[in-house]
Amino acid sequence: MIIVMKNGASAEEIEEVVKHIKIWGAQAHVDRGEVQTVIGIIGDKAEILRKPWTSFAGVEKALEVSDPFKKASRKFHPSDTTIDIEGVKIGGGHTCVIAGPCSVDTEEYVVTTAKAVKAAGAKMLRGGAFKPRTSPYTFQGSGEDGLKILQTAKQETGLPIVTEVMSIDQIDLVYKYADAIQIGARNAQNFNLLKAVGKMNKPVILKNGVATTAKEHLMSAEYVMSEGLNDVILCLRGTRSYETAFRNALDVALIPYLQELSHLPVIVDSSHSTGARAYVSSVAYAGMAAGADGLILEVHPNPCEALSDGEQALLPRDFDFLMKKLDGLKAWSQKEWNRFDKAAK
Amino acid sequence: MIIVMKNGASAEEIEEVVKHIKIWGAQAHVDRGEVQTVIGIIGDKAEILRKPWTSFAGVEKALEVSDPFKKASRKFHPSDTTIDIEGVKIGGGHTCVIAGPCSVDTEEYVVTTAKAVKAAGAKMLRGGAFKPRTSPYTFQGSGEDGLKILQTAKQETGLPIVTEVMSIDQIDLVYKYADAIQIGARNAQNFNLLKAVGKMNKPVILKNGVATTAKEHLMSAEYVMSEGLNDVILCLRGTRSYETAFRNALDVALIPYLQELSHLPVIVDSSHSTGARAYVSSVAYAGMAAGADGLILEVHPNPCEALSDGEQALLPRDFDFLMKKLDGLKAWSQKEWNRFDKAAK
Amino acid sequence: MIIVMKNGASAEEIEEVVKHIKIWGAQAHVDRGEVQTVIGIIGDKAEILRKPWTSFAGVEKALEVSDPFKKASRKFHPSDTTIDIEGVKIGGGHTCVIAGPCSVDTEEYVVTTAKAVKAAGAKMLRGGAFKPRTSPYTFQGSGEDGLKILQTAKQETGLPIVTEVMSIDQIDLVYKYADAIQIGARNAQNFNLLKAVGKMNKPVILKNGVATTAKEHLMSAEYVMSEGLNDVILCLRGTRSYETAFRNALDVALIPYLQELSHLPVIVDSSHSTGARAYVSSVAYAGMAAGADGLILEVHPNPCEALSDGEQALLPRDFDFLMKKLDGLKAWSQKEWNRFDKAAK
Amino acid sequence: MIIVMKNGASAEEIEEVVKHIKIWGAQAHVDRGEVQTVIGIIGDKAEILRKPWTSFAGVEKALEVSDPFKKASRKFHPSDTTIDIEGVKIGGGHTCVIAGPCSVDTEEYVVTTAKAVKAAGAKMLRGGAFKPRTSPYTFQGSGEDGLKILQTAKQETGLPIVTEVMSIDQIDLVYKYADAIQIGARNAQNFNLLKAVGKMNKPVILKNGVATTAKEHLMSAEYVMSEGLNDVILCLRGTRSYETAFRNALDVALIPYLQELSHLPVIVDSSHSTGARAYVSSVAYAGMAAGADGLILEVHPNPCEALSDGEQALLPRDFDFLMKKLDGLKAWSQKEWNRFDKAAK
Repeated sequence: MIIVMKNGASAEEIEEVVKHIKIWGAQAHVDRGEVQTVIGIIGDKAEILRKPWTSFAGVEKALEVSDPFKKASRKFHPSDTTIDIEGVKIGGGHTCVIAGPCSVDTEEYVVTTAKAVKAAGAKMLRGGAFKPRTSPYTFQGSGEDGLKILQTAKQETGLPIVTEVMSIDQIDLVYKYADAIQIGARNAQNFNLLKAVGKMNKPVILKNGVATTAKEHLMSAEYVMSEGLNDVILCLRGTRSYETAFRNALDVALIPYLQELSHLPVIVDSSHSTGARAYVSSVAYAGMAAGADGLILEVHPNPCEALSDGEQALLPRDFDFLMKKLDGLKAWSQKEWNRFDKAAK
Repeated sequence: MIIVMKNGASAEEIEEVVKHIKIWGAQAHVDRGEVQTVIGIIGDKAEILRKPWTSFAGVEKALEVSDPFKKASRKFHPSDTTIDIEGVKIGGGHTCVIAGPCSVDTEEYVVTTAKAVKAAGAKMLRGGAFKPRTSPYTFQGSGEDGLKILQTAKQETGLPIVTEVMSIDQIDLVYKYADAIQIGARNAQNFNLLKAVGKMNKPVILKNGVATTAKEHLMSAEYVMSEGLNDVILCLRGTRSYETAFRNALDVALIPYLQELSHLPVIVDSSHSTGARAYVSSVAYAGMAAGADGLILEVHPNPCEALSDGEQALLPRDFDFLMKKLDGLKAWSQKEWNRFDKAAK
Repeated sequence: MIIVMKNGASAEEIEEVVKHIKIWGAQAHVDRGEVQTVIGIIGDKAEILRKPWTSFAGVEKALEVSDPFKKASRKFHPSDTTIDIEGVKIGGGHTCVIAGPCSVDTEEYVVTTAKAVKAAGAKMLRGGAFKPRTSPYTFQGSGEDGLKILQTAKQETGLPIVTEVMSIDQIDLVYKYADAIQIGARNAQNFNLLKAVGKMNKPVILKNGVATTAKEHLMSAEYVMSEGLNDVILCLRGTRSYETAFRNALDVALIPYLQELSHLPVIVDSSHSTGARAYVSSVAYAGMAAGADGLILEVHPNPCEALSDGEQALLPRDFDFLMKKLDGLKAWSQKEWNRFDKAAK
Repeated sequence: MIIVMKNGASAEEIEEVVKHIKIWGAQAHVDRGEVQTVIGIIGDKAEILRKPWTSFAGVEKALEVSDPFKKASRKFHPSDTTIDIEGVKIGGGHTCVIAGPCSVDTEEYVVTTAKAVKAAGAKMLRGGAFKPRTSPYTFQGSGEDGLKILQTAKQETGLPIVTEVMSIDQIDLVYKYADAIQIGARNAQNFNLLKAVGKMNKPVILKNGVATTAKEHLMSAEYVMSEGLNDVILCLRGTRSYETAFRNALDVALIPYLQELSHLPVIVDSSHSTGARAYVSSVAYAGMAAGADGLILEVHPNPCEALSDGEQALLPRDFDFLMKKLDGLKAWSQKEWNRFDKAAK
């Protein structure tokens, strides 16, 4: 961290900052420029970096030099993490497409969907039994009944199950049925929930928050990992924008960026980013082209009757169309690029 | 709700939409224009409005006509809600300034702060015992010890206490000590938590989410109120922006806007919107000038030692300066404007 | 357009709106609901749609039903526009990669770059002789000297030239040298300039504005086209976001979206969207995968010496790497998807 | 400027950066930390700061320490600038309210408005003869006829005139009639136009761009001032946001912030920020409460007939209501706060 003092900061003000850097256990390196003095803090204890440096007299600003995440960082864990969910692998070169209804509704619909997405090539089944909805007057999820329906679908197809947990008190119940746990955008900074799932032993698919940055997404992963769990999958579902054409804006540049900063797998949820069936597949395809480790998509045999988000659900035949198209795709590999770049120097 | 059909939608497509409107319990009014057909849905059951209309063949878009909140809406509750917190009133013409440290640290600091803000005119004490922090490696709050310190400060000053609850499992503990409950920005769409505090009987100060709109803020209030609690205070703490000068952007136009849409009191948190001590007071002042029902501000006697957010804490003397300045302020009243506007017609 | 009246709007207020719809040359269709009255405006003269409907007493809101662009719209021009720039085709199934330095600096650099990008497969050369820079103290472009250097590069390679025009008074000069004209993000809503280039007879590459929506981007194209020019290429260079990892955020969903709304070609500028060499190629690749009609990229043989934006320039060898990779790419086609979707119904 | 090298950057990489700092005329100060090396650039020539530092091998990031604006900065011009427009003063303790129609339409409307706003206390008249409109099919302004109407209104009332110039070729014409020139949001980064008005000798009211930051706003002022003109008034009209309640979001914290960074006057345009008559006055009032140096507002005697933006126009009686209310307002003064803050230390 670098502390930039104001023009004309006094010797006493500089001394006060230096004194506190030492009190708080780090070293200070003072650089007296012609116009402004700059103080480097050597030593990276997180607590020191978070001190209210701009509260000190004479300080103009404090600039962070290093990233605040450790366990999620590739710096401290250079090789890719491969996650195994009931034999299905993701990350480290393994890609995985997850598909299923937004909400669990009837057993018939869910089993039909599970069979269809399996036939098309999906390796896991998604479906929500607890639903975060903006309005309290809309369908809030089917609870344990829904989880049982997912279990049936798993028995019929062999597909492992991903389902969302919305609060700590749902953990016991959801973990009885789920093979991997989804944390949704609205809970992406529900830090108590993150810590709670970090204490459990099932892989977590962690969506970015409604308006989080890539580094905040990684900090949320760090919350989970700081409790001991290493199996975190980063899921991009877009962030809020002033563009009205789509539900959210998803910048595919985040895929290679997160893959460089972190060793964790990165998947794309283009159902929630676009919010519109007509564009779900094109963005999914572009995401895989950009090198994503997988997809998570909503599929429903009868979207008009879906209990939530029907407007963004693919029909089974649409999903099949996408999967076939993906067959012929040669994806970008940021690693290949990095190797090329290094070799060329 | 209005369904706009595509250019050249077929009679069958129109019929299918109309049929479903009826199946789902409402009436349809079809308006065949020269270019496009428009179908009005008469009947306002929330479930119908949430159906995936754009999944139907031939539908171009679905436009909402009415707002989805009811209990929070002034349409259904025209007169202002006045909330009483241990004798301190807010809303319906009563203004209230709440102040105190961001995090509860030592008893000495908290009691000193409580006495100082009371002397300056604050009517309630704020302080966090549980803290949502972006990094798992920073101070996470002092828990029940912190709540006891707040209790001591209340005994010494008589100021009722506002403190944050971050998850359902903290409710029992926090409600033993708090007089009003704060829901923070990162939990503003933690719908399970909203419902849980809505079942309790203490007033809730509900911050807007990191990137919510005014209507989403009201929908979060609706979640609390749908469980039976009426005492909700809307708190504006700014939303995420590309402007880097401040932590968040706070548009004061939201104050009269929310007061027109809703009967609930609206207060301003300029500590979190600006994130910088130098601007906390100017925005607080402007917020009250715009007609806010109150303020919630962070005050700390030694910000350099504060365990969190010291850079945005006012010193007790700063807070006193602001309160004296507020004494002479003649605030805008949107009601007075509305009366003028109506009379002039 | 649909006018939604307030709850309890009076018969006189409704009558006043209807009267004005007629005065202004359209027909009104009044729909008296149980709660709210809705008035449809039949007739789509742009001027009528822009009237200040919410200024009328009793009006709650005015909802637009149809899009305000005509010449740029696929509704009125169903087949793709193919643009021919000195024999190089773009749109309607023809893809085109444009590359070159951000700013024109020395003849040696520009000619070297031109030869290199041609060898790798680029079909046009880009380079700025006039530069919009946020600071008046940075390099502002080389003017006519720069245009002559581009001409030399064209003579040496045969590549047609794309260069930016920043103001009306530069038009005469720039049109002497350029084969296609670029309008930059900061001028995307400089409507006088748009009309001026619309009166000329060279193709225009029109970037989206710093924070425009897709429909505003099309409205800017409409400005150009309303003056008679049909050859407009829409260029996506990302929009401003709170994400700090990149210079701008580019949502690839905009590619199929614009292609559906409009018949104009859509290209991607991932140099300006990412602002960082390490990610330019991955986003370019994903853009082409999403079905873009082309790319416009910055390439410089010595980015450390580039007069502007060196941090986002590809080296010639990087560009070659990308072009080889693109060779094997099977792109998404939104048209193919639409045909599949129609056939399946 | 500070260059942060990557973990494990080689000695050669560090040397290469240092070498270029010297070649480009500044001094380097190398700070070898345990983990990362940091290089300070001493000397503040703008060109050096803009070099593509991250293009150098081994560089992780480049952090700016000082602001890139000079003439607009209070650092180099500590005392307030007071601008005199035909005897009307603004800045340095002088406040000024500017009002008038959005577009100039009929002489009768404009003169009526001018008389009404003068009677209510406005000191200048605004009105657009050239209009930037998102659609080419809406009213584009009345041109010189409009300017003559403004001249008539000036003759009748004595109010100096503010009107917008949209492109360089309008300058001669507009400067014949205007007393101060407005640069609109869509031209806020039209750098050629900024330089052109900077060469003229009339005060400029410079709006922030559609999505510019405060510092970018100051950089636009710097463009004008770099050509020699000192009389620039910063005008806040809000920036684009995902909030749908208003046309733009205006954070009043920008008022004291800009006043601290710059010596230029800061005024508020709440007509364009809110976009809705019902909230124009409350935000104008809050802006003045936050210490703004003035207002610029749209007033029209018959908004339903206004040629543009009628929905945000105040009626003359509304404007009178606001002005009377402003009479009793004791505004915040950031200077008073700064004096208090300094004295207390």
